[in-house]
Amino acid sequence: MSFPHATGANLDQAPKKRLAVGVVGSGNWGTAIAKICGENARAHGHHFRSKVRMWVFEEEIEHKGEKRKLTEVFNETHENVKYLPGVECPPNVIAVPDVREVARRSDVLVFVVPHQFIERVCDQMSGHLRPNAVGISCIKGVSVGKDGVRLFSDVISEKLGIYCGVLSGANVANEVAKEQFCETTIGYNPPNPVISAEQIVAVFDRPYFSVVSVDDVAGVALGGALKNIVAMAVGFADGLEWGGNTKSAIMRRGLLEMQKFATTFFDSEKGTMVEQSCGIADLVTSCLGGRNNRVAEAYVKSGKPIEVLEKELLGGQLLQGASTAKEVHEFLSTKDMVNEFPLFHSVYNICYENMDPKGLIQVLQPLKEESENEGGTETE
Amino acid sequence: MSFPHATGANLDQAPKKRLAVGVVGSGNWGTAIAKICGENARAHGHHFRSKVRMWVFEEEIEHKGEKRKLTEVFNETHENVKYLPGVECPPNVIAVPDVREVARRSDVLVFVVPHQFIERVCDQMSGHLRPNAVGISCIKGVSVGKDGVRLFSDVISEKLGIYCGVLSGANVANEVAKEQFCETTIGYNPPNPVISAEQIVAVFDRPYFSVVSVDDVAGVALGGALKNIVAMAVGFADGLEWGGNTKSAIMRRGLLEMQKFATTFFDSEKGTMVEQSCGIADLVTSCLGGRNNRVAEAYVKSGKPIEVLEKELLGGQLLQGASTAKEVHEFLSTKDMVNEFPLFHSVYNICYENMDPKGLIQVLQPLKEESENEGGTETE
Repeated sequence: MSFPHATGANLDQAPKKRLAVGVVGSGNWGTAIAKICGENARAHGHHFRSKVRMWVFEEEIEHKGEKRKLTEVFNETHENVKYLPGVECPPNVIAVPDVREVARRSDVLVFVVPHQFIERVCDQMSGHLRPNAVGISCIKGVSVGKDGVRLFSDVISEKLGIYCGVLSGANVANEVAKEQFCETTIGYNPPNPVISAEQIVAVFDRPYFSVVSVDDVAGVALGGALKNIVAMAVGFADGLEWGGNTKSAIMRRGLLEMQKFATTFFDSEKGTMVEQSCGIADLVTSCLGGRNNRVAEAYVKSGKPIEVLEKELLGGQLLQGASTAKEVHEFLSTKDMVNEFPLFHSVYNICYENMDPKGLIQVLQPLKEESENEGGTETE
Repeated sequence: MSFPHATGANLDQAPKKRLAVGVVGSGNWGTAIAKICGENARAHGHHFRSKVRMWVFEEEIEHKGEKRKLTEVFNETHENVKYLPGVECPPNVIAVPDVREVARRSDVLVFVVPHQFIERVCDQMSGHLRPNAVGISCIKGVSVGKDGVRLFSDVISEKLGIYCGVLSGANVANEVAKEQFCETTIGYNPPNPVISAEQIVAVFDRPYFSVVSVDDVAGVALGGALKNIVAMAVGFADGLEWGGNTKSAIMRRGLLEMQKFATTFFDSEKGTMVEQSCGIADLVTSCLGGRNNRVAEAYVKSGKPIEVLEKELLGGQLLQGASTAKEVHEFLSTKDMVNEFPLFHSVYNICYENMDPKGLIQVLQPLKEESENEGGTETE
């Protein structure tokens, strides 16, 4: 029976030493992840050091009428009052302003920083890592440069000389922080597993955060990046007030383009995208009103350019679906394979080449070889 | 490259004779399908007889102040004024009140009747079929009796002694009738294909109704039946106001139970459920506000029993998700495999055994083998 099950926290073999977990990042998702790691460090005391260090980029904040340091307030209140207010973390999660200290004192390093900061943070950590440390990247997206498409887990791996896996799934941060049930996928497949997949699962698996681990690191990483392109296509359909049949066709075709991209350019398994939380579930969640979906809908309804909507609706943040569509388009152009991914291509064209969103319908229609002739003609 | 493409209307080889298409049924979906078949019969005049006969269960209706026969009004106006008002069919679609005439004069018989009538209709048609006729069942659901789960295509096949394929997808009838774009899946794999899959695709494929054909007849048929169970689970989640993470986890787990059911008890391919319109797309559409979803949501919010809601919201029609959950439960009980399908089991328990819908969360949580112990203990 090949039905995938959550791996669960199966830690039959006691490890030689208790592992220390560190979290690099402290936004809303970083803090929610640190809370999870802290809960598990306490729950599995045989296997993990209790203290979970969370690197916090130090800021002065206003707290109860006083100017305070964010780390100090967190370590007093166990609440990230700036980025995840109202959620209490367990007291064994400690805010640390020096990322090198987190690096020096962690066996498992969980990366949850905005993707534009990852290289700089790695440079600071470099030379301060424990032997046999491993990383888990929770950063969604991919890095596209002159060398092609790179996973952030590979960026981390190369910068720090450690193995790095990936965690991604249908995990809206605020819902996870409130302990609303969800699933996630971890891609972890080190060549020499000093720290086992079971141990990694135990770092994250909670009753409200159900982890399935797979070998396919690339598929897990790409799901979280590419789904934003598809969510925009569904958002355009929402803006045009197309029906559920049409939207589910867009999702299906988009999911298959995600799968094709991952299996054509990376060593990904077909099942990851269509069966795991990092693929189908994350896509569905994003199409049910994620930011890419909402901005794309507003684009159709308001007629305003994407950049204007980014300012108005996202406070100036880049819309990931649009920028990923552009990066993927540039990559596919170098391979002369743009036309093999018609849905990705159309989202790019709508965002950057003034294509009419209504044209998405033509994209969904396969080319027919026979021309239509009204009225029957006998052939014999 | 194994990327599935729509087969399209590829009819390079001229067939020996033009095929006649008949539609058995004339509800809203039946009429929408007859419209499609009529358009294709005209478009591909080399391959199909122009006339498409649609069996209409004769009724007296009130039309423009007069009592008229439904078939007469249809043949005058080309509109099914009772079941699909406002939609014009091409004039080569002819309403026929005698199902035996449709049987006698059709090479391709498309079945679109409510499932409770199919055996009786087949009995009437029996003995009146053309040699080499084939059927395509557009009936969603499965037939469960003392012999286990049977596909309606198999029921038709046995009753009439013809091969029968299946058409199913994310195809809300009124959207299809309005020519809003959608996709569908045809399962067609006859042992001796006198009528080819390409010809069958050409009967249905339209610019707004994109057909993919697969060999996996069982998978196509089961997708349309089992998705209703999952749509109810998502409806319960809607009623409980659970977030998008949780709902997409339910859809994912449901989709995998659908896949497992089809591959365990039938000769189905894993890809059909997770990659084709009859699986993932139909499930998504049904979870975005189909009737199973809406009634399940109302069940949680109103506290009224399912039977009462069937009366209030469905005019007394049976809710397919609930009845399918019950049939599947009875079937799985005989196999002692109820616990292998925890989501299906829970929907049954909620509908018929007073289970609290909140219990769905426990179902999503895999059993953990390690008990939690707060506070760390050294092992060495």
